[in-house]
Amino acid sequence: MKKLINTAESAVEDALGGMAAAHPALRVQDRVVYRAGGPRPGKVGLVSGGGSGHEPLHAGFVGYGMLDAACPGEIFTSPVPDQIIEATRAVDGGAGVLHIVKNYTGDVLNFEMAAELAEDNDVVSVLVDDDVAVQNSLYTAGRRGTGATVFVEKIAGALAEEGAPLTEVARVAGEVNERSRSFGIALTSCTTPSAGKPTFDLPDTDVELGIGIHGEPGRTRVPMASARELAAVAMEALHSDLALQGDLLVMVNGMGGTPLMELYVLFAEVAAFVKGKDARVARSLVGNYVTSLDMQGFSVTVCRLDDTLTRLWDAPVETPALRWGR
Amino acid sequence: MKKLINTAESAVEDALGGMAAAHPALRVQDRVVYRAGGPRPGKVGLVSGGGSGHEPLHAGFVGYGMLDAACPGEIFTSPVPDQIIEATRAVDGGAGVLHIVKNYTGDVLNFEMAAELAEDNDVVSVLVDDDVAVQNSLYTAGRRGTGATVFVEKIAGALAEEGAPLTEVARVAGEVNERSRSFGIALTSCTTPSAGKPTFDLPDTDVELGIGIHGEPGRTRVPMASARELAAVAMEALHSDLALQGDLLVMVNGMGGTPLMELYVLFAEVAAFVKGKDARVARSLVGNYVTSLDMQGFSVTVCRLDDTLTRLWDAPVETPALRWGR
Repeated sequence: MKKLINTAESAVEDALGGMAAAHPALRVQDRVVYRAGGPRPGKVGLVSGGGSGHEPLHAGFVGYGMLDAACPGEIFTSPVPDQIIEATRAVDGGAGVLHIVKNYTGDVLNFEMAAELAEDNDVVSVLVDDDVAVQNSLYTAGRRGTGATVFVEKIAGALAEEGAPLTEVARVAGEVNERSRSFGIALTSCTTPSAGKPTFDLPDTDVELGIGIHGEPGRTRVPMASARELAAVAMEALHSDLALQGDLLVMVNGMGGTPLMELYVLFAEVAAFVKGKDARVARSLVGNYVTSLDMQGFSVTVCRLDDTLTRLWDAPVETPALRWGR
Repeated sequence: MKKLINTAESAVEDALGGMAAAHPALRVQDRVVYRAGGPRPGKVGLVSGGGSGHEPLHAGFVGYGMLDAACPGEIFTSPVPDQIIEATRAVDGGAGVLHIVKNYTGDVLNFEMAAELAEDNDVVSVLVDDDVAVQNSLYTAGRRGTGATVFVEKIAGALAEEGAPLTEVARVAGEVNERSRSFGIALTSCTTPSAGKPTFDLPDTDVELGIGIHGEPGRTRVPMASARELAAVAMEALHSDLALQGDLLVMVNGMGGTPLMELYVLFAEVAAFVKGKDARVARSLVGNYVTSLDMQGFSVTVCRLDDTLTRLWDAPVETPALRWGR
């Protein structure tokens, strides 16, 4: 294993130091990444978090128009309640706090505990569970939360910025999740620094369909195929779960080790697939947004937009990983 | 080899199709990627290009405040003169055209030929040769052009947007190159789709210091070391070539297969190194900007800023890969 780290133990801390150094608009304190400047009075605060190793998720989405704070855990490990409580208190500008939680058992438990213990704060949680690949998995009861997290954080963040109340921000966040679906395919395993070897074995001839973002098993393994065929597998899985219809927000996401060129090849296939349905790619993202360390592979996430969601998606955002319109 | 492509032959064309589908503000025609809307009268046109496989370079930097057109060649292969001539003619709004050329023999020849043949257009070329690793290499007489290309394209693009004349845009572009230095380190080789196997062998215990962006050999191989040690090797190489002094623009760039988390670990070390010199990280980029397909590794590029260059760096930009301030 060759990784650009100092030690496996210090990797998360060291990376947070790098984020702080690179982004003066962020403040990193006690394992929480904040927007510098503190809470805006009257604005709903948005807190998310989860295991590290999925960068830029979540800390890369802290900033104007998106998250107020992100709580990174150790690699592939939930943040602890103390981090979440601290973040919740710090970002509450008097209008309450929304917790955006990916559906993994550890995350759900720790965010729930934090919400209970932060009793002076009005907290509502929204669960993201967009991955259609499997019903339960190694770390999940129900569906896993993956790519839709980016959509939920962006759209809820824009609505909070407009001054909407907590109940409304939470309602729309939940609606984005309900309208979103994801499916991922792995070409290789990831390797965690502490394990030092691939999480699972995948022969050089096969791919894993429906992979999770921690290397959890998917639906099945099949022989490696063309971008067109793999895109079709992913899109059929999404379409059969929630029909592709109307204006879509589409993300073709790299798992960390996939060249951007290949993601564009895939995006062309995804766009062609959508054209064949009663739908249109209205907005899109192509790049590394929800990764799994050095895994090679991709996921596709689609969200059925309406006018309100499109407007909120287009609203200005200024974070390390998503930035436009100001 | 597992790659998300349809065929090795169609990979570049398919990826360009994906870019066109993902970015309505771009227009792709005859292997040239343009800003939609055509040339702005009186604005100097900026054209760059080079082999594919370095995405987002160059097509990902086409847009407001940066390039007017990019000419992608086949993978690791210069674009042909016809592409460059076509792009040059199309973006000339009457104020002439700047060619931004990375210093590789094929690119230099083909851009020169295109500049000669586009005789109705006033063309000035600027050569980028920022890589301090080696003096000559497999594909270069003199130093190779790598990360500084992003700085040159951004800063010259901002100046052109302000309406500066061609001579001035070319002068500042050259100045950015002169003030910039790069050094790269590879953990693994890249694999081109047509070869189907790694370009070179690198044992699992070693890294290649001073790697080129096509897998050309660097200075030497050494045993794998910590992020701190590798960052120091790169920074010493830069510092001994051009002293780190004053305000710096610093890019920690991933080679395509390196997780963002590791790039932030490196950035922390780079920032700490700079602190130990008579210099300051005034602006920074952390991410995949000049890649080498699926190679794992990184490069560091620094540019010594002055007030004008800082202002131009900060100016609004709106491209697929670099976007801020509007």
